[in-house]
Amino acid sequence: MKKERNELMEEIVSLSKRRGFIYQGSEIYGGLAGTWDYGPYGVALKNNITSLWWKRFVDDRDDMYGVDAAILMHQNVWKASGHVGGFADPLVTDVKTNKRYRADHLLEEMGVDPKGMTLDKMTEVIREKKIKSPEGNDVSDVRQFNMMFKTHVGALEDDASISYLRPETAQGLFVNFKNIIDTFHPKLPFGLAQIGKAFRNEIAPRDFIFRVRELEQMEIEYFVRPTDWKGTFEHFLAQQKEFLTKDLGLNTSKIHVVDIPEADRAHYSKHSVDHEFDFPFGQKELLGLAYRTDFDLKQHTEHSGTDLSYYDEETKERFIPHCIEPTFGVGRLMLAVISDAYTVDELGGEKRTYLKFAPSVAPVKVAVFPLLKNKPQLIDKAQEVFKMLRKEIKGVVFDDNGNIGKRYRRQDEIGTPFCVTIDFDTVEKPEAEVTIRHRDTGEQERVKISDLLTYIKTKIG
Amino acid sequence: MKKERNELMEEIVSLSKRRGFIYQGSEIYGGLAGTWDYGPYGVALKNNITSLWWKRFVDDRDDMYGVDAAILMHQNVWKASGHVGGFADPLVTDVKTNKRYRADHLLEEMGVDPKGMTLDKMTEVIREKKIKSPEGNDVSDVRQFNMMFKTHVGALEDDASISYLRPETAQGLFVNFKNIIDTFHPKLPFGLAQIGKAFRNEIAPRDFIFRVRELEQMEIEYFVRPTDWKGTFEHFLAQQKEFLTKDLGLNTSKIHVVDIPEADRAHYSKHSVDHEFDFPFGQKELLGLAYRTDFDLKQHTEHSGTDLSYYDEETKERFIPHCIEPTFGVGRLMLAVISDAYTVDELGGEKRTYLKFAPSVAPVKVAVFPLLKNKPQLIDKAQEVFKMLRKEIKGVVFDDNGNIGKRYRRQDEIGTPFCVTIDFDTVEKPEAEVTIRHRDTGEQERVKISDLLTYIKTKIG
Repeated sequence: MKKERNELMEEIVSLSKRRGFIYQGSEIYGGLAGTWDYGPYGVALKNNITSLWWKRFVDDRDDMYGVDAAILMHQNVWKASGHVGGFADPLVTDVKTNKRYRADHLLEEMGVDPKGMTLDKMTEVIREKKIKSPEGNDVSDVRQFNMMFKTHVGALEDDASISYLRPETAQGLFVNFKNIIDTFHPKLPFGLAQIGKAFRNEIAPRDFIFRVRELEQMEIEYFVRPTDWKGTFEHFLAQQKEFLTKDLGLNTSKIHVVDIPEADRAHYSKHSVDHEFDFPFGQKELLGLAYRTDFDLKQHTEHSGTDLSYYDEETKERFIPHCIEPTFGVGRLMLAVISDAYTVDELGGEKRTYLKFAPSVAPVKVAVFPLLKNKPQLIDKAQEVFKMLRKEIKGVVFDDNGNIGKRYRRQDEIGTPFCVTIDFDTVEKPEAEVTIRHRDTGEQERVKISDLLTYIKTKIG
Repeated sequence: MKKERNELMEEIVSLSKRRGFIYQGSEIYGGLAGTWDYGPYGVALKNNITSLWWKRFVDDRDDMYGVDAAILMHQNVWKASGHVGGFADPLVTDVKTNKRYRADHLLEEMGVDPKGMTLDKMTEVIREKKIKSPEGNDVSDVRQFNMMFKTHVGALEDDASISYLRPETAQGLFVNFKNIIDTFHPKLPFGLAQIGKAFRNEIAPRDFIFRVRELEQMEIEYFVRPTDWKGTFEHFLAQQKEFLTKDLGLNTSKIHVVDIPEADRAHYSKHSVDHEFDFPFGQKELLGLAYRTDFDLKQHTEHSGTDLSYYDEETKERFIPHCIEPTFGVGRLMLAVISDAYTVDELGGEKRTYLKFAPSVAPVKVAVFPLLKNKPQLIDKAQEVFKMLRKEIKGVVFDDNGNIGKRYRRQDEIGTPFCVTIDFDTVEKPEAEVTIRHRDTGEQERVKISDLLTYIKTKIG
C-alpha cells in the first residue's frame, strides 16, 4: 500500500513537470528544497483557484475587506503574536554529523504518535526506544527550533534591525484592523481577507508541494461579538466545504472534517476544525478553521500601545472583538485538485492518463485544432475559431503539433475538458460545423460554429 | 516649487490612507520603513493593473509563457547573475554615530549629479565639497553595500545555507528557461512572463511607494535570435507606451522616453530605455526596457553546468538566444496612476478633490445609492439594482451612509466613475429610471433600469 502511494505521487510529480505545471525551485542548481516554481499551467491553475476564492469570500460578500500586507513586518509583531517565542519544531541533532532532524518525524517512523507530547516526553521515548538518526547515530535531546526565516532590514546587522519573513499572512490582517475600522467604519460582524506568501523554515520539507518552505495562503480574520462565535464558526465550516466541492469540484468522499484536540491546537486557538483530504500519501490537513478568540488583538494592543478595541454602536459597548479564522493553503489545494483529478483509464483499447479537472479550475478550457497542419484553409479557419473563443474565454489554446491522437493525449494530460477540431467539412459545408471531443468520455459531437461559444460557455459555467 | 510638490505628495499620501488605498506597513508598531500595506481599494487597483498587464502581455499573445517562481532561490543563482558581487549602493558612515547614508543622495542634495561616478570619485567630491552627514559629522570613504536581504535556509546557519530574498523576479525566469523549452518546445522568438515580489534593502526608502524595500514586479524575458534584438526592442517599447496610455489611461504628456547612457546602465545591459513619469517629486523612472544580450543564460550555463543553449529548427543552429527585458514596477505604476488621477477642482461652487481614474483601473466602477436610508422601498430597490450590477461587473458597491452630497464626495475621492441613485420616481413610475451621476463633470442623467447594465458596460469598456 505504502509503495503504491509513493508510485502514484511519483507519477503526479512527473506529469506536473512534463506538462508545465510545477518544477523544482532552482532546479538547474540542484534545487532548493521546499521551493517550487509554477510553469504556465501551474500559474493558470493557481490563478483559477485564487480567483474562485476571492470571488466567493470577498467580491460576492458585503462584509469582507481585502488587504495585501507586506511580507516584511516589524519584529515586535512576531513577539506579540507569540511566534518569536513559540513557533518552533522539535529537533534533535545527530551527535556525529551535527545534522538536524524532526523529532516528531523520527517517532512517527517508529510507529509512535507524537501528537500532544512535550519535548521531555519525546526525548524520553527516543531514549526508551533507542531511536537513532537516519544515519544510524545517537541523537541529542529534543530542542525547539524556531521556524521563522530571519533577516536584517537597514544597513546595520544588530538586534534592532532583525525582521522575519512572515510565517503566516494572518498578522498582516490583525495589524491592519484599526486601519480598516478608521477607514470603513464597518459594523460587526466583518472580516479582513488576504492572499499572499508566507515562509516556514521546515527542516524536512516533503510530499511535493504539501510541506514547503515558501507557501501561499488565503486567510480571513472574521470579527464577531464574543457571544456570536459559534454560529460564525459553523458558517465558515460550511463555506469551506462548498468552496472545496462546488468551486473546485473536489470529490466529497475524500474530504474529512476533523476536530482538533486541545493538545494539538495552536497556542492562540480555543477551537479548531480541519478539513483533511485523502492525498496519495495519506489523510492530511487541507484547510483549517480556528476560533482565535480575542488573543491577537489583545496581544497587539498590549505590545503596540494602540487600542484595538471596537465601539459597538448597536449595543453601546466597547470591547475587543473575537475572531474566527478560516485558512487555506494554495499549494495544498493545487495538490488536492491535481491528485483528485489524476486518472488512469482505458480509451479505445489503449491505456491513457488524464486530469479530470472541473472546468472551473482547468488551466486550459478549450484546445482548438486544425485537422492537418499543412492545409492553409484548415489553419486559417482554426485560427479564426481560436481567436473568436479566446476573446470571450480565458484558457483557450491553439494546437497543431503532431497528429490528432497525440494532441488528444497531450490535452488529456493537461486536463483540457474540450477539444475542438476543424476539418474539411468545416471549411466546405455552408453551415460550418466543428467536432467537439469530450475529455472524460472521449465522445465526439458536431456543433455549428455559430453555436460554439454559447455551447462552451454553458458547459464551463 | 519644491514645497508645493511636497504638499501635493502629502495630500496624496493622506488621501491614500483616508480612503483605504495604502497604509504604512506595521503602522501600529511605528512602521517598518519601506514597507506598505494595501487596503481594499489599493488591492483592487493593484489587481486591475496586474490583470490588464497579464491580459496584454500573456493571455492575448501566443508567444508568452507565464511563470511563478519562488522568492527564495539557490544562492548560486545570485552569484551567476552578478548580484552577490555587484548589487550594491554606495554608502558612507557617519564617523560619530555610525549611521549609514547613501553617498549619491548626499551629493544630490548638494547639487552634484552623481550619475556615472566611481566610488573613488564620489569620495573625492565629498572631501572637496566638505560634505557632512545629515547630523553634521564627517563621513567615511564611500563603500559598496549589498542590497540583498540575506537569510538562512535549513537548521544550520553557515555559508552553505545562505539564501537571499530575490532582488528581481528576472532570475526566476532565466532559471526556468530550460523547463519551458523542454515542456513546450517554443519557436523563437518567445518570452517568459511573471508577476511577483522582489526585495531590496534600500538604505533610504522614500517618496511613498516609489522607493521601497518590498516591491512587486511584472517582468518579461523575451528571447530572440541575436540579429533580431532591435526590432523586438522597438516592439516592446511601443507596447509599454500602449500599456501606460491605453490600458492604464495615463496622461501622455507626463511620460518621457529616456535613453540610458552606458555609465548608468545595469551591468548586464547593452542598451536601456526607460519610460519616465512626471511624479509630484520630479521626473523619475517608471518602466525599464533592457537588452540583456545572452549575459544571463551564459552565466547560468557556466555556473549551473546546465546547457542553456537553444537548437533553432529553422536555421539548424544551436546558440544561446539573446534577451529583451521589459520590466514594470507595480507600486510605481500605482503611484503614477494615483498621482495622475489626483485632481482638485470646483464643482457647484465648492472645492472638491477627486481621483480621475480611467474606468479600467478604478477600484470601484459603480456606487449604488438609495436616496434616503430610512425608506425600505428605496433600500430594497437599490439592493436589487446593486445585486443585478454586481453579478456582471467587478467593483460595484452599495453606499447608504450619510446624505447624497457626502456620498458623492466619498466616491469622488475613491475615483468611482459612476454613481447610481434610486429615488421615489424609480420605485413609483412604471418605467423605472435611475439617476446616473458622472464623476468628472458632476452631470446627471436619467437611465432606464432595463438599459442600465448595458449603459455602464459600454462606458467602462
